Formats: sequence, structure tokens, C-alpha cells
Amino acid sequence: MTLKAPLVLPLSQITGILETLNLIPLIEQGFLALSSNKAIVPPVGELLFDNPRGEAHIKYGYILNQPYYVVKIASGFYENPKLGLKSSQGLMLAFSQQTGVLKAVLLDEGYLTDIRTAIASMITLRYLAPKNIKSIGIVGTGIQAKLQLKYLKEVTPCKNIMVWGRTAEKIEAYKASFKNSDYNISITSSIKELANTCNLIITTTPSKEPLLQESQIKKGTHITAIGSDTSEKTELDSNIIKKADIVVSDSIEQSKSRGEIYRARQDDCLNPNKLIELGNLIKNPALGRQNNQQITVADLTGVAVQDIMIATAILNNLKNI
Amino acid sequence: MTLKAPLVLPLSQITGILETLNLIPLIEQGFLALSSNKAIVPPVGELLFDNPRGEAHIKYGYILNQPYYVVKIASGFYENPKLGLKSSQGLMLAFSQQTGVLKAVLLDEGYLTDIRTAIASMITLRYLAPKNIKSIGIVGTGIQAKLQLKYLKEVTPCKNIMVWGRTAEKIEAYKASFKNSDYNISITSSIKELANTCNLIITTTPSKEPLLQESQIKKGTHITAIGSDTSEKTELDSNIIKKADIVVSDSIEQSKSRGEIYRARQDDCLNPNKLIELGNLIKNPALGRQNNQQITVADLTGVAVQDIMIATAILNNLKNI
Repeated sequence: MTLKAPLVLPLSQITGILETLNLIPLIEQGFLALSSNKAIVPPVGELLFDNPRGEAHIKYGYILNQPYYVVKIASGFYENPKLGLKSSQGLMLAFSQQTGVLKAVLLDEGYLTDIRTAIASMITLRYLAPKNIKSIGIVGTGIQAKLQLKYLKEVTPCKNIMVWGRTAEKIEAYKASFKNSDYNISITSSIKELANTCNLIITTTPSKEPLLQESQIKKGTHITAIGSDTSEKTELDSNIIKKADIVVSDSIEQSKSRGEIYRARQDDCLNPNKLIELGNLIKNPALGRQNNQQITVADLTGVAVQDIMIATAILNNLKNI
Repeated sequence: MTLKAPLVLPLSQITGILETLNLIPLIEQGFLALSSNKAIVPPVGELLFDNPRGEAHIKYGYILNQPYYVVKIASGFYENPKLGLKSSQGLMLAFSQQTGVLKAVLLDEGYLTDIRTAIASMITLRYLAPKNIKSIGIVGTGIQAKLQLKYLKEVTPCKNIMVWGRTAEKIEAYKASFKNSDYNISITSSIKELANTCNLIITTTPSKEPLLQESQIKKGTHITAIGSDTSEKTELDSNIIKKADIVVSDSIEQSKSRGEIYRARQDDCLNPNKLIELGNLIKNPALGRQNNQQITVADLTGVAVQDIMIATAILNNLKNI
């Protein structure tokens, strides 16, 4: 039998389909499968590069009773912007769970990873954000810092944004990119000011030193930390995890070797009784924020179930597969 | 900057280029890089499927000072032949080591994995086969069992082949597929007869029970074991490894968790002083077979350096990349 050639989807086709999908409930299904032992998700594969500095992650697995197993390769090469290239790159592959035959190559150039990451952040906000959001702090000015604002309207009416970045140039460029939006964007070079102003904070940088300190966090604040997805990266002082009333991880298994929770565990700042896996929070929202005084933290390292769900949803929208 | 779309190479184009390559020295370079600490090769990623039974391996890495990092996905779904499909499937991906940008998708349907595996077997024979090869025993009747005969002529003039298989039907089909070749193919349903007749044996099955026993192996025999690439598969009684004068592994690191050497180590049958990594044997052929009395074993679990070398060589033959 001759193999049918796999579909090769360019980014333009992928973004077209993406606009038609209801992403938040879709990605929630992936986290539910993970926390219900219906997903096979081996440890993340990792390749590091020194010159120029870069990293590639391979996330892969399958959800029982779905058609595909999915392999996603996503990289970050931080010198790329100097060459006019996005730092994040990558693609997704979908194979039959029945035969191993390659069914589709999604040439998303890292875009689907960016989107599913932003959506996971929105999911954490659904269950953990305080009801009285005054101002939303965005730490960082890169792709994720921008994508948050694309989806925030789906989970909160708040339009007040304060952004912090490493250089005045990047902060101004970030603000300028939203000049035609309905967000009120203020800027700061002081993390302390941001933490003092905002009771919802989203951190999006590849920092290897904590940016937010425990003493800066006010009661009632929720923080979603997106940036750290390795053992080396960290944006939050571990004492923030210690102080938090609720700590949510997208994958408790992955948090044993990467992310803020990994770091907090190393620093003996994690109380396992406060730790909830995101899929279990979705299953039982009563486990989430109780009042406007609690401090809550969600740590996202990115899980293959997100890639599986988004790739599968795109392919389910095609007729010729 | 708009990304240049990656090249997508169909199998027909890949096989065309493959015919022009001198594969044995090419793959040898990969093993040399591995054993010289010039290759970054993380642990193999693995996905297992129960219904139908299947497995997928992800092998990936890069060689310093080469243009690409390579990710290879290869699967075995053993019910596929009933559907008229090859059990082995897969593809290779080449990304820039400088930017992470995807440069090429090699839609080889598992063929490059099959070829680089057969070539590694030939490399072991160059250094370990006895000089007086009387007859070559092939254990198994599948893809690898056939591919050995495609390349054996590059390392030995011997044309006497004895093949063993699980069913008379498969053995006869194997023999029939070479009816127009210059090989003299005899068949057997007795492993003992095969071991008694042949002083060069290549095992190619996914068996989970040892097929060859220590008592069957005559002095002067070389065995290359290709089939086992997981912790569960095994074709050789561990006492064969114990009895052998020289034991060669394509990757000593991988042999700690997969293949015949893994099994022998578990069974306390491995003398580490006899163990040589294939790249070191290539570097110093004097470490190989000394005479026609020694028993030698090579255990191949398949290493990403093989995939990196074969994918890179194919891309180096293209002008438009």
C-alpha cells in the first residue's frame, strides 16, 4: 500500500483555522486528561546550544482514544531578533496512534506553542485571579507579554495594564504596539512599583534570577509565571511560593525538574499541601481562590497535552486528512 | 524577515540522493564524533502504545561545528503488515544550529533509519568479522534481514547465507526475494543449525526472549545484534556476552538502559574491561578482532549521530537549502 503523503500545513493556513477555535475550553480538556491519567506524556527532551545561546525542547505524547500522537519541537535562540528572526521557532507533527504513519506536519514556526502557552495563562486566571482586578502587571516585553493582551479580554474586563521591561526602548516599543487597542498601558522600570500597583501579575521572561521579591507582593495578588520552563530559569523569589496560599502547577511531574516550583522545592519553600495540578483545579474550581486576600501563584512550564489538543483541533478542521 | 519555507523532501528524492553517498565512511564519522565528545546526544525519547502494540523513538542531537541539529522520529507498529503498511515509519527534521529555524523535513517513512541501521551493522563487521567467513547467518526475515544483503558486498565477498525465521512462509518469502541475486541462500528453522553453520551471525528481530544460546556459539564467531533497542527486547542469551572476548556497543551510554548489553549487565554477565565503544574501535582498529578463535559481539541500539550524519549528508547534496 502506498502511503498517502502527509499534509504539510503552512503557518498561514494554521492561523486561519486557529481563529475559528474556542481555545480556552479546548486546552482545558488537555489539562483534564493529564490530571485524569488519560494522557501519556514522557519527560521533556532538551537540547542546549552555547554559541549562539539557544535551547530546543521536545514535548510529545498522546491522549487515550484520540486519533494522533503528537511531537512538538520548539526552540528559543535569544540572538535571533538581531537577525530579524523570532527567538521562538518550531513545528508540530501528528502521527496515527494506530499505525505510526505521519499524518501532518504543522509548520507553525513556534506560533502554536506561543498561543497554547498564552491560553494556559488565561486558564489559570479563570480560577485564580481576584474578582476586583485593578491593574494587570506584565513582566517582560516579548512575544508572550504581547499575546497575553490578545486573550485577556476573554477572562477579564480590566483594561489597565502596567508593563515592566529591561530597557526603556523595549518598554516603549511594547506600549506602541498597542496604541490602537482599548488597553490603558502604563510603563515602569520598577518591579516594586508594578507589584504595588497590580493585583494580577503575569511574568513572561527567560530570567535566571528572581525578578519579583516576596516583600513586594501584596495580599490578594495572583501571579502566573510563564517564563521559567527549565531548571535554570526563574522569575519569582522562592519565598513567594512559600507565602502563597495556593500554588498551581500545569504538571506536578514536570515541576519536579523545571520551573518556579522546582526552584522553590530546592529552596525548601514548597508546602506540598498547597500544591494543586491545573487539571484538578479545572475539575474542581472550588479548590481555587476563596477571597480577595489570598495570594495565589500558578507556574506554567508547558505540557505536551496542550500541543496535542491544539494540533488535533486544527487537523479535525481539515477534510482531507 | 520572512522565513524561507523549509524544504520538504519526499522519499523518492531521498532515495535518489542516497544512492550517490558513500555511507559506511559517512556513518563512521558520526560514531567517531560520539566517542570523541563532539556530539550532543540526549537520552532517547520513547512512547509506547498498547492497542495496537507499537512504539515510537525520538532520537536527536547535534555534532559540534555542523550546520544542523537533527530530530528523528521512528516507530514500529507490528500489526502494520496486516494493513499492507511497513511496521517501521518515521521522518527526520533538520534545524539550524544557529537559529533553530527548521530547514528541512525528510519524509523518509522510516527508510533512512533502516539504512543507517544496516550501515552500522556493516561497520561492526569491518572490525570484528573473522577473516575466513564461511557462511553468514541472518536471524529474522524482516526489513533489516533483507537490507543486510544489500550492503554485505561492501564488507565481505562471502555469498553463503543461512536464514532463520519464525514461520516457513516468512523464510520462503525471504529466500524468494533474493532469487535474482548472487547469494546462495539456505534456510533453516533451527537456530542451533544456523549457529553451527555460520561464523558470522546478524540478529534482526524484535524478540523479547533470547534466541541464540551460549552453548550454540562456536569459537571464532562474530555476532552483530541489531534487533534489541529497548530494555525489554533481547535476542542473545546474556552468557554469550559473558563468553565473548570483545563486546562492542554503538553507545555505551545508551547501553546502560537498552539493548543486549543492558540485559547482560542486569544478569551480571558484562565484564566492563571487554566493552569498547564503536567510535573508539574505528579510531583504533587494533582493538578489534585479533584472530579466528575469538568470539566477538557488537550490540547496536541505534544512535542519533547516525541520523544526524545521514540527514546532513542528504541536505549537503541539495543546492537550494
